[in-house]
Amino acid sequence: MPAKVKLHDTTLRDGMQGEGVSFSLKDKLAIAEKLDELGIHYIEGGWPGSNPKDIDFFKEVGKISLKQAKIVAFGSTRRADKVAGNDPNLRTMLNAETPTVAIFGKSWTLHVKKVLKTTLSKNLKMIEDSVSFMKSKGKEVIYDAEHFFDGYKDEPEYALKTLQAAEKAGADWIVLCDTNGGVMPYEIGDISRKVKKAIRTPLGIHTHNDSGMAVANSIMAVKAGFTQVQGTLNGYGERCGNADLCLVIPNLKLKLGIDCISDEQLRSLKEVSRYVNELANIIPDDRQPFVGDSAFAHKGGMHVDAVRKTSLSFEHIKPELVGNRQRVLVSELSGKGNVLSKASQFGLTLSKDSPETKEIVKTIKDLEHRGYQFEAAEGSFELLMKKSLGRYKKLFDLEGFRVSVEKREDNRLISEATIKVKVKGVREHTAAEGDGPVNALDNALRKALEKFYPALADMYLSDFKVRILDPKAGTAAQTRVLIESRDHEDTWRTVGVSENIIEACWEALVDSIEYKLLKDKK
Amino acid sequence: MPAKVKLHDTTLRDGMQGEGVSFSLKDKLAIAEKLDELGIHYIEGGWPGSNPKDIDFFKEVGKISLKQAKIVAFGSTRRADKVAGNDPNLRTMLNAETPTVAIFGKSWTLHVKKVLKTTLSKNLKMIEDSVSFMKSKGKEVIYDAEHFFDGYKDEPEYALKTLQAAEKAGADWIVLCDTNGGVMPYEIGDISRKVKKAIRTPLGIHTHNDSGMAVANSIMAVKAGFTQVQGTLNGYGERCGNADLCLVIPNLKLKLGIDCISDEQLRSLKEVSRYVNELANIIPDDRQPFVGDSAFAHKGGMHVDAVRKTSLSFEHIKPELVGNRQRVLVSELSGKGNVLSKASQFGLTLSKDSPETKEIVKTIKDLEHRGYQFEAAEGSFELLMKKSLGRYKKLFDLEGFRVSVEKREDNRLISEATIKVKVKGVREHTAAEGDGPVNALDNALRKALEKFYPALADMYLSDFKVRILDPKAGTAAQTRVLIESRDHEDTWRTVGVSENIIEACWEALVDSIEYKLLKDKK
Repeated sequence: MPAKVKLHDTTLRDGMQGEGVSFSLKDKLAIAEKLDELGIHYIEGGWPGSNPKDIDFFKEVGKISLKQAKIVAFGSTRRADKVAGNDPNLRTMLNAETPTVAIFGKSWTLHVKKVLKTTLSKNLKMIEDSVSFMKSKGKEVIYDAEHFFDGYKDEPEYALKTLQAAEKAGADWIVLCDTNGGVMPYEIGDISRKVKKAIRTPLGIHTHNDSGMAVANSIMAVKAGFTQVQGTLNGYGERCGNADLCLVIPNLKLKLGIDCISDEQLRSLKEVSRYVNELANIIPDDRQPFVGDSAFAHKGGMHVDAVRKTSLSFEHIKPELVGNRQRVLVSELSGKGNVLSKASQFGLTLSKDSPETKEIVKTIKDLEHRGYQFEAAEGSFELLMKKSLGRYKKLFDLEGFRVSVEKREDNRLISEATIKVKVKGVREHTAAEGDGPVNALDNALRKALEKFYPALADMYLSDFKVRILDPKAGTAAQTRVLIESRDHEDTWRTVGVSENIIEACWEALVDSIEYKLLKDKK
Repeated sequence: MPAKVKLHDTTLRDGMQGEGVSFSLKDKLAIAEKLDELGIHYIEGGWPGSNPKDIDFFKEVGKISLKQAKIVAFGSTRRADKVAGNDPNLRTMLNAETPTVAIFGKSWTLHVKKVLKTTLSKNLKMIEDSVSFMKSKGKEVIYDAEHFFDGYKDEPEYALKTLQAAEKAGADWIVLCDTNGGVMPYEIGDISRKVKKAIRTPLGIHTHNDSGMAVANSIMAVKAGFTQVQGTLNGYGERCGNADLCLVIPNLKLKLGIDCISDEQLRSLKEVSRYVNELANIIPDDRQPFVGDSAFAHKGGMHVDAVRKTSLSFEHIKPELVGNRQRVLVSELSGKGNVLSKASQFGLTLSKDSPETKEIVKTIKDLEHRGYQFEAAEGSFELLMKKSLGRYKKLFDLEGFRVSVEKREDNRLISEATIKVKVKGVREHTAAEGDGPVNALDNALRKALEKFYPALADMYLSDFKVRILDPKAGTAAQTRVLIESRDHEDTWRTVGVSENIIEACWEALVDSIEYKLLKDKK
């Protein structure tokens, strides 16, 4: 196994092939800086020959001073009917003025014949010429062997010949790609070991996640001696995405003991992951290994108990190493232990046998019995604790509201809310329309509160979920509403329960607003 | 490599440890039936000793006739201070009256000493006694070796001894668990091969995804000769989740060529994945390999072009094999096959190229584009088809409705609906109150219709679920409502979509009533 591995990020190129992923030029520059801070060695910025917008990126990124990352321009080998010096694609790559270029070529005879529609020997010449040309211009050259593993499984000799063509031309790196993401880890291990014996050039791995194997396959190749891993932040990429560097990096450092980024940089991993999700406007995956919000969340009472005895018992690494944290979920199985560990997380001191602790445990049990569920509503839970401890005072008094939805004969639909509240001794009576009753109520409530609490303009409702509890109870069925809210830096969730969906929404909305104001005070 | 592998699903037990995952008893029974149809061999239904609610599940599931799946009750080895026959946990497992039980015990000395707080030799005896006891009661016994891989890496001899204790006692299966999800695939491969040499009992694998390796690790163990894989649908589970059977199954069948479920069952995989997400009220992961909406979505112009030339060029399997489809993100392709197979299911004859078929496909595509989703709303789908084929005539015309919820100063909450409809030429204008706005609307609508259609008295709304689609669209976000209705003999589900939750409920309510009357006519 190698002692060091270089990381090659392609979020800005391959990542942008992902459905729903798009970055502005400004976003791309901000991400490049973040990647540099994280300690990434190569940042693939785009494909100038295929996407004219990428040309601007290379122009602008040159003006930023990066600590150690090298910017890479990406493109294909020369066209079959061009000489390298006159190939428009290679020319555009040169114009990007990067120290390093990544050139991809074909390893799979199927692609050479059916997609490129050229001969096997011409393809070898295209690879050799393109790499030679870039070397003659003083570039560091990464040669990406597209579909290498599929090609090797089909015709191993030809696939190896394509690598030898790149090696002969002086490529600095040869990167084997599982472009379709369909190869199994034992195959990657096996083929990588064979290639390692045949090729002296430093080797890299580039995988896709179509079989759920992208990270495992990267690790198998490193185990075979490969010293470059390509991937994207949060695994963005076409179809099921690329190898997620947020998983590759901690696995390399913490599991394989390989040097790639510093311990301090590793501690910023969760924050970087979150930052890029925010720029991409993508909802974070709570279950994402290492950096997801649930990655170290314990629910079962037995596990919680064991984790308190020794965290190693149900945690494969210390969450702080990647900037994450342990969370104990409050669920029906919860007892005093969970409440205590939550309290300390919120910065509250509670002793095990104090009357407050007993009171809070009792309140939670009562609420859970009535259908509240706090594991997905930590915002409400934190408020509840602070209220029980007298650490929170009411923001306003509700005197009444009315919400109506009317469908008229012309098929028009009108949703309206009126609200009467008292804030800091002043009575506000306002009305607002909305896209639906909840939106109308939210609008009316903010309209009443915003002049007293202007920070509310920064938050918005990002999701809500509704569930009928115990539907067999018929008319007495309770409705549970979970609301997710966001501002520019956080996400929080609150809960409301009532027989009436509007009242349940109201409760969760009020908690959400109270949580926001409480949070801002900290 | 084995020729056959048995699948052990633990969605209803380990899956429910996942943050935000909760199923009602009714959900659990519905999922058990779905798993049976999918061809799953073992369905772990719960832990009766730890969760009293699970006892009801075992009682009820006994009344369902399953095709081939065996129901499994889960629990721990006996307590250190009890004999097996008097151990409350083992007793509760027996009372579940399942053909098969899964008993977990400790393999890692750290856990034996720090969590169980007993001696290494007593732990071996606990394993042996518990398995023997269950065998003496005629049960098929699956022994789950918790934390086996961590234990083996720490003290290989002791870890093996725990397996030998279970083997000696006559366990039918021994399952090695990577409980913390921290082990690398090359380690799993290596340790699995060693255990395979030392143990004659059939072996299984149970993995967690904390390093992103759950599926890879399952495959590595099968490659070493293991013949049972445990996992959950969509990978639900504590922290980062368990091995996702929606990935394990197609990898086993299509990549390793191993028999586990039939080709036809495999084609239902995407639908099953979606169904369980809907019941759990969890937003499907578009990037989920094999079954995600983006799994075969091509964005890059060059890839789209290549895929058109030969789909093999950028697709690792044919998407239809798992019930998925290729999507070209600019111009979507049709699902004619699905429509035809659904039609025959509803007793409708449709030919492939008839104008009706084309019309229905077009309508469905338009509706799906607007956020409708028919996998969990077959009632609406059947109505839609019959309406398109002119097999259904309108029951009434809506002239308008108004729904209001008022919270008064005395804290009382009033929900009221008024409605104007024309039924069989007669205008009805009625009003009703309810526990909430949907209930009020439902009551008013029935009040208006029941004198014309008395059978409606027999049905009631038994569940509803609400989801905001594309929450990022802000004010233009669509709300999808799924309603479940029942009468004395059937359950059916319908869907409505609108920017306004009340209108979405209205649509689903009307479909639900229309479905009831259509059904009664048959």
